[in-house]
Amino acid sequence: MKISVPATSANLGPGFDTLGLALNIRNEVVIKPAKFHSVSLKGEGSNNPKLKDNNMFISTFNDFHQNLSSNKQQYRFEFQNSVPLSRGLGSSSAVIISAIASAYAIEGIELHDKKLLNLALSYESHPDNITPAVMGGFTVATIHENEVYFIRKDIPNTLKAVVVIPNRPISTNLSRKTLPYKYSKEDAIFNISHSSLLTAAFMSEDWRMLKKASKDRFHQYYRMKQMPELFAVQKVALRNGALMSTLSGSGSTFFNMVYNKDASRLVKKLEENFPHFRILVCDFDNNGIIVED
Amino acid sequence: MKISVPATSANLGPGFDTLGLALNIRNEVVIKPAKFHSVSLKGEGSNNPKLKDNNMFISTFNDFHQNLSSNKQQYRFEFQNSVPLSRGLGSSSAVIISAIASAYAIEGIELHDKKLLNLALSYESHPDNITPAVMGGFTVATIHENEVYFIRKDIPNTLKAVVVIPNRPISTNLSRKTLPYKYSKEDAIFNISHSSLLTAAFMSEDWRMLKKASKDRFHQYYRMKQMPELFAVQKVALRNGALMSTLSGSGSTFFNMVYNKDASRLVKKLEENFPHFRILVCDFDNNGIIVED
Repeated sequence: MKISVPATSANLGPGFDTLGLALNIRNEVVIKPAKFHSVSLKGEGSNNPKLKDNNMFISTFNDFHQNLSSNKQQYRFEFQNSVPLSRGLGSSSAVIISAIASAYAIEGIELHDKKLLNLALSYESHPDNITPAVMGGFTVATIHENEVYFIRKDIPNTLKAVVVIPNRPISTNLSRKTLPYKYSKEDAIFNISHSSLLTAAFMSEDWRMLKKASKDRFHQYYRMKQMPELFAVQKVALRNGALMSTLSGSGSTFFNMVYNKDASRLVKKLEENFPHFRILVCDFDNNGIIVED
Repeated sequence: MKISVPATSANLGPGFDTLGLALNIRNEVVIKPAKFHSVSLKGEGSNNPKLKDNNMFISTFNDFHQNLSSNKQQYRFEFQNSVPLSRGLGSSSAVIISAIASAYAIEGIELHDKKLLNLALSYESHPDNITPAVMGGFTVATIHENEVYFIRKDIPNTLKAVVVIPNRPISTNLSRKTLPYKYSKEDAIFNISHSSLLTAAFMSEDWRMLKKASKDRFHQYYRMKQMPELFAVQKVALRNGALMSTLSGSGSTFFNMVYNKDASRLVKKLEENFPHFRILVCDFDNNGIIVED
């Protein structure tokens, strides 16, 4: 059985804990019944031997699998990871989602998207990465009484993502603690209106609106202060074709959206200005999780 | 020349100063060149003689007309008003929008929708009533540097509005002052996510999502406390077919959205429970302002 899940970029500027989208950078895992438990790990994280033994995928898989099956079957897990770790590209959401889905799939038990999301909430309390990881495309999500409510929309293939991955992380926990406890009415209204307009722009494919609509007063400034080069990344991106340029999740990656024709120019400019950061171009993903027998 | 403008319902729960929609309840004015200035006023407000002399339409019209024309032509203004006054249905936005548009139209000077909105901002600093008044339909709007940025969407004719108009107003100014100066991060995120989800629901016509998505922690509770019967209005509406039920603007009107087939049942229930309030059923308006020669 093979399961793959996309990387995701959450928040998208004003849409704190709400908006997200899926990128065609995927983590794959092949799971096969075996006499003994074994793990192979390639790609992102494979130079870290701890990830083989203290593997969040396998512990999450076991949490669910033990409840779904009484047999003691062992498995071989072959991971091929492309989602960078700890950079705000949804790597832990990808692991949680694929581990839960695998535990159900391997027992042949049907698992609807919405139930998968609700189960994932006990591991990841915000819906903005898990929802696009499961559904693909652009997603708007909120939570009521431990259930995810969402609406999704395809992102057309006339657009590409250009992601700028710094050479060091910002810790998500530290990053969340740097945010204010309270917001002025004006700042809250600013984000309400911008997140709503950004949603309408994605839903109606009105890309000219992205630059204004993606402005934020809620989290980006506080987080970017921890890595001030990110202000320069955003400026270079918006001056060189980016339709929007926002901190991906809690960082440190920056997400930029461009028309296909503008991607290579933007990549070149970013590489010139930030030679120590990784620059990736990729398509958007409209599939979300894919489970193959 | 005849100009008509729709009533509007703004905020729509979580979308404070952001979301709005247009109702097919219209104010009309016919303007004719005349030897002497004169005014006739029918419908809403016609029992208030002050509105004839101290008329916001005419003062706003004159503000603009004096700059656009050097001639001293006088006019007869015939108002036929259906938008209730001071009840949160956008009556002052309707007046501002139609007065500015009339001043341009009567001189034959073209006025684009976006310019009309930007001009109206100097009279009405929030975009959530003026935008649907001009554009019709459902609108998401924000302001950058004194310019309105918006996206609109038609509302299909399979839906109706049921508005509950109390027998007394809540003052907009007083109502705004009752709101907190600061909001907790949690409450701000609540409104960001709900306003975004509500936007996505209107854009994708996913009406089942309205009930959850229209929840608000920003303003309704503080305003409704001033007229506690409104909590009962909302409860009766949501239990009797309303897809959503939100304070209209700053109140006192309550806006409810229903499928056509559910409108009469909801009206009956509301009339039974709130015999001293006016209950109106109307279509949504997708035209916005209409100027006829």
